[in-house]
Amino acid sequence: MKYSQLFGKTSKTVASDADSINAKLLTQAAFIQKQISGVYNYLPLGLRVLTKIQNIIREEMNKIDGQEILMPAMTQEESWITTGRNTMEVLFHLKGQGDTNLVLNPTHEEVVTPLVQKYVFSYRDLPLAVYQIQTKFRNEARAKSGLLRGREFNMKDLYSFHIDETDLNRYYEIVKQAYFKIYERIGIGQETVLTFASGGNFSQFSHEFQTLNEGGEDTIYLCPICRVAVNKEIIDTQKTCPECGSDKLEAVKATEVGNIFKLRTKFSEAFKFYYSDSQGQKKIVEMGCYGMGPSRVMGTVVELRHDDVGIIWPKNIAPYQIHLIGLDGLGEDLYQELLSKNVDVIFDDREISAGAKFADADLIGIPIRLVISQRSQEKGGIEFKLRSEKESEIIEAKDLVSKIIKFYN
Amino acid sequence: MKYSQLFGKTSKTVASDADSINAKLLTQAAFIQKQISGVYNYLPLGLRVLTKIQNIIREEMNKIDGQEILMPAMTQEESWITTGRNTMEVLFHLKGQGDTNLVLNPTHEEVVTPLVQKYVFSYRDLPLAVYQIQTKFRNEARAKSGLLRGREFNMKDLYSFHIDETDLNRYYEIVKQAYFKIYERIGIGQETVLTFASGGNFSQFSHEFQTLNEGGEDTIYLCPICRVAVNKEIIDTQKTCPECGSDKLEAVKATEVGNIFKLRTKFSEAFKFYYSDSQGQKKIVEMGCYGMGPSRVMGTVVELRHDDVGIIWPKNIAPYQIHLIGLDGLGEDLYQELLSKNVDVIFDDREISAGAKFADADLIGIPIRLVISQRSQEKGGIEFKLRSEKESEIIEAKDLVSKIIKFYN
Repeated sequence: MKYSQLFGKTSKTVASDADSINAKLLTQAAFIQKQISGVYNYLPLGLRVLTKIQNIIREEMNKIDGQEILMPAMTQEESWITTGRNTMEVLFHLKGQGDTNLVLNPTHEEVVTPLVQKYVFSYRDLPLAVYQIQTKFRNEARAKSGLLRGREFNMKDLYSFHIDETDLNRYYEIVKQAYFKIYERIGIGQETVLTFASGGNFSQFSHEFQTLNEGGEDTIYLCPICRVAVNKEIIDTQKTCPECGSDKLEAVKATEVGNIFKLRTKFSEAFKFYYSDSQGQKKIVEMGCYGMGPSRVMGTVVELRHDDVGIIWPKNIAPYQIHLIGLDGLGEDLYQELLSKNVDVIFDDREISAGAKFADADLIGIPIRLVISQRSQEKGGIEFKLRSEKESEIIEAKDLVSKIIKFYN
Repeated sequence: MKYSQLFGKTSKTVASDADSINAKLLTQAAFIQKQISGVYNYLPLGLRVLTKIQNIIREEMNKIDGQEILMPAMTQEESWITTGRNTMEVLFHLKGQGDTNLVLNPTHEEVVTPLVQKYVFSYRDLPLAVYQIQTKFRNEARAKSGLLRGREFNMKDLYSFHIDETDLNRYYEIVKQAYFKIYERIGIGQETVLTFASGGNFSQFSHEFQTLNEGGEDTIYLCPICRVAVNKEIIDTQKTCPECGSDKLEAVKATEVGNIFKLRTKFSEAFKFYYSDSQGQKKIVEMGCYGMGPSRVMGTVVELRHDDVGIIWPKNIAPYQIHLIGLDGLGEDLYQELLSKNVDVIFDDREISAGAKFADADLIGIPIRLVISQRSQEKGGIEFKLRSEKESEIIEAKDLVSKIIKFYN
């Protein structure tokens, strides 16, 4: 893609109400554009990042036998009355034709439970895990923090169904490992810690995945030995590390990027979701739910991976692999060559100053910046610089593609 | 995928309110499941088909320089007041926190125009085309016909922006050709005809793409010579073929699968969207919009491609390439071999009668059915049958994969 043709250009100024680093940088770099508070448009660069995050999540969900489905945003309020959650403050209510009462789902237990119930009758149909990557709606009193707390946002929600608690516990651990794998692939694995949270009425704990970062909206209590944490909600009752028992927990700032929860029989009881066991006895289904918001993860990555001049994308979710800057009328041939070798490249072909192009490359944050200019050619090739490093080097044209491939593999 | 593990199994019975062939067959075959009138869940088989249709559309949009973005479903009502369309009957209205008035978008002119306006200032920024594949909402008085007329549905909407009418006309023709390419790839090219419709205040005609089928909800007037049609809305003023002038138009039933429209300056005027031309003069932007609903296309394919016993998927959008039936305890080895050769196969491994498996394969409608049984092996191999043909043949194991590849290429 030529930057001159790309829809959405960088902007030095940003709306005065950008209340967070991710909103500010993603808007300035033209990844997103606010529609209303908590509701964003994704421009081409932003959608590319979001899609890459979704695809990593999708691959890992498929590996643990999650089956992808797609449930609707809009649902009869009746389902929410069944579970008693129709009074949730964040529910958007609306009227359909014929004065029917509808809601926009902020989560999908009220949809997935009766849906799965239509097809699961016997112990032979279990265990089962289904997930979707879909748009959710929450009528937040104060939407804030860019992509972190939206009123319309993207969510991956996985739901699992089991014959008993033992099997739920088994699968819950599998999902936990899949989550760590996802954060690692996205590039925030080092900073993301398992955090013990309230388990509600049915289980001792649920778990959040919290990404440590100074601007985080949550305070968690981290065990420096185990690298697990306790969240604020339960720290008064759980004062020690749940794994090693240490009482040396440190308060740190973090952003939640996922949570997993043993629902047990809360929703299967509400919908009377039973199965027949191998003896033909009627038994209640055990459930788990596992959330991760691709848009929230995208915002969190920016909170964590930036410097004073812009974003620093991890390589697996960068919108492009290469940011090519052409100076002195050069670049077109190299751009075509990279395209022909299937390198994912954005080429800044504009007739503006070198300084302005460098500033935009820093702001946008693609991992590798290449500069081709008379000066680089006099030095013997193309300037190669990682966004995460200060120093650049000159690479001979013949070595360029193999160096790029090596970096990305 | 093993059918025994697949979420969503076939059902002989179907909800009594299935009002169309597509709703009936897609529900019986467990591709979709109704949530409320006009709102459906996509089960794994259904989501695979929908995704394949979306990807074909995406590829063809990218080829004509459409840039993919993602706009929100929820928007301030104010934008709709600006264009005077806030009184549209199909608009869902809702209240956000702080008593703000919000709507769910049934189309996105009110979002895309001010969004593009933020980044387009000069003739150098034009032409530009952006599209999204996204969920839309229409508060239909009577949602009906399965996936054909939904209250929540999937839509591809492309919008183009131009310096003048000439350039809009140029791009409009390019989109027209891309649409034909899409229908051809999806497998309904032969039956889909360009249909002249009202152009509104600004242009003589807009165009619909109508797929001829006996169960279609629209009546169109087809020129047997040119294979173009005139829609019902304008037949009283346009009594002859707009291409050859023939007055021998035939009334036929069809289903609309896309429409393209020259918006001209309707929305750019409402939002005061101007650009500077090469002389620095302020000029109004010309716009086009181009819709195609992947979910509606999916429903239309089923209306067109089925027989008394089930669906007959075109090969490019079938949920799987191969429906493998194992009898007499056979099939696992062949299933593993096909998987290892990257053949996209669903394996009916259930312990039920051969007849029940054959009936399910016919209902689900995957293009190639393979049967491995003692009998097929005695005959020298594997039974190979196209869903669209009555006769089967026996293929030697060694020739199987190449035959499959040949069919799909």
